[in-house]
Amino acid sequence: MRDAVKLIKVKEDIQADNDLLAQRLRERLREQKTFLINLMSSPGAGKTSLLLQTTGLMKDDFRLAVIEADIDSSVDAERIAESGTTAIQLQTDGFCHLDVAMVQQGLDSLDGNELDLIFIENVGNLVCPAEFDTGAALDVMILSVPEGDDKPLKYPLMFSKCHALIVNKIDYLETSLTDFDMSLLEKRVRKINKGLKIFSLSSRTGEGVKTWTDWLSKKVHEHNS
Amino acid sequence: MRDAVKLIKVKEDIQADNDLLAQRLRERLREQKTFLINLMSSPGAGKTSLLLQTTGLMKDDFRLAVIEADIDSSVDAERIAESGTTAIQLQTDGFCHLDVAMVQQGLDSLDGNELDLIFIENVGNLVCPAEFDTGAALDVMILSVPEGDDKPLKYPLMFSKCHALIVNKIDYLETSLTDFDMSLLEKRVRKINKGLKIFSLSSRTGEGVKTWTDWLSKKVHEHNS
Repeated sequence: MRDAVKLIKVKEDIQADNDLLAQRLRERLREQKTFLINLMSSPGAGKTSLLLQTTGLMKDDFRLAVIEADIDSSVDAERIAESGTTAIQLQTDGFCHLDVAMVQQGLDSLDGNELDLIFIENVGNLVCPAEFDTGAALDVMILSVPEGDDKPLKYPLMFSKCHALIVNKIDYLETSLTDFDMSLLEKRVRKINKGLKIFSLSSRTGEGVKTWTDWLSKKVHEHNS
Repeated sequence: MRDAVKLIKVKEDIQADNDLLAQRLRERLREQKTFLINLMSSPGAGKTSLLLQTTGLMKDDFRLAVIEADIDSSVDAERIAESGTTAIQLQTDGFCHLDVAMVQQGLDSLDGNELDLIFIENVGNLVCPAEFDTGAALDVMILSVPEGDDKPLKYPLMFSKCHALIVNKIDYLETSLTDFDMSLLEKRVRKINKGLKIFSLSSRTGEGVKTWTDWLSKKVHEHNS
């Protein structure tokens, strides 16, 4: 396992540098009253659809923008921009997560001083993004019902580092196609992260989205006041 | 982006070492007539359920075993072992993919000379596992319908390096909850990987599984004869 050891060592150095930069970015954004939120999930859990619903409900109250990260496409930023919200696409060129340097590139393309709220849509991946602080004030994970209620057992770091968990695609619970058990999920989540705030919603139908945006609006007001 | 450059350099060195070891492992397994297959997907796409169906249909014809990879649990290996198939659990301890050294650890725990067919269930991740050759004779990707038909646009490396694509959870197509378009998916896949073999099935109902296992059985016979 020589190679693995070498990789871990470099990762530790990079993470230490990144943590320091993340802390500085967080302080700077607090001073300038801009709230940065980092959305993470598996591929296909519904990050972009949730962003469309969320920005739709919040854009009258806040000056907002979206930083989209993808390995090699700009379809998500195009969808957001079509809805009338400013969107920047970061192409990570193979990279499996965002770090502060990449987020900073996104922020540099936006006029941050004029914004109250910036969403980051991280690369679709439950592993690597959990290891890299982006400098966001709030880390949020989206889990979709079809992925199953066993994910806290398998990706504990992601569940442990987030401030909120959004269970998306709850309309799938009404079919007989899944045996997803919401109370079992909560039990598994609580073992890892006792204080994690949990929301259940459907980006497709809009059910439950307002409870989430009301909570987020309050967080933004607290941070920016 | 100094950090990113440093990481890429180390990754290149590690990948070059890994590619050489993978090639050697592949040759050794061909000589000893053991077929190694590497299954990759997003979290929750149904790798373990598909493995249970696949090993159930193939275990009378082949001496087989499963190497399960997870960051931090053994639930998948337990499910496989309960079904009567030999299963080894590799805990990657935070690592986001398997490399040859890790696969070799799994093989060392099995009596490889006595096996015709070994399945690897890689870490649930569409990014990093695509970058690391495991030494398998066949790389197979599983995409589940709820993830959406746009995944080839976002994770092109995974689609380009696989020999077969299994579209799982096709029972979800019968609901009104998804606008997944199978012909659009195929069109997007063909742009990246013209020769990719595509199967559609449901691990839950068993529909389409036999077409997949018949094809795989033929591949194993060809390799081991």
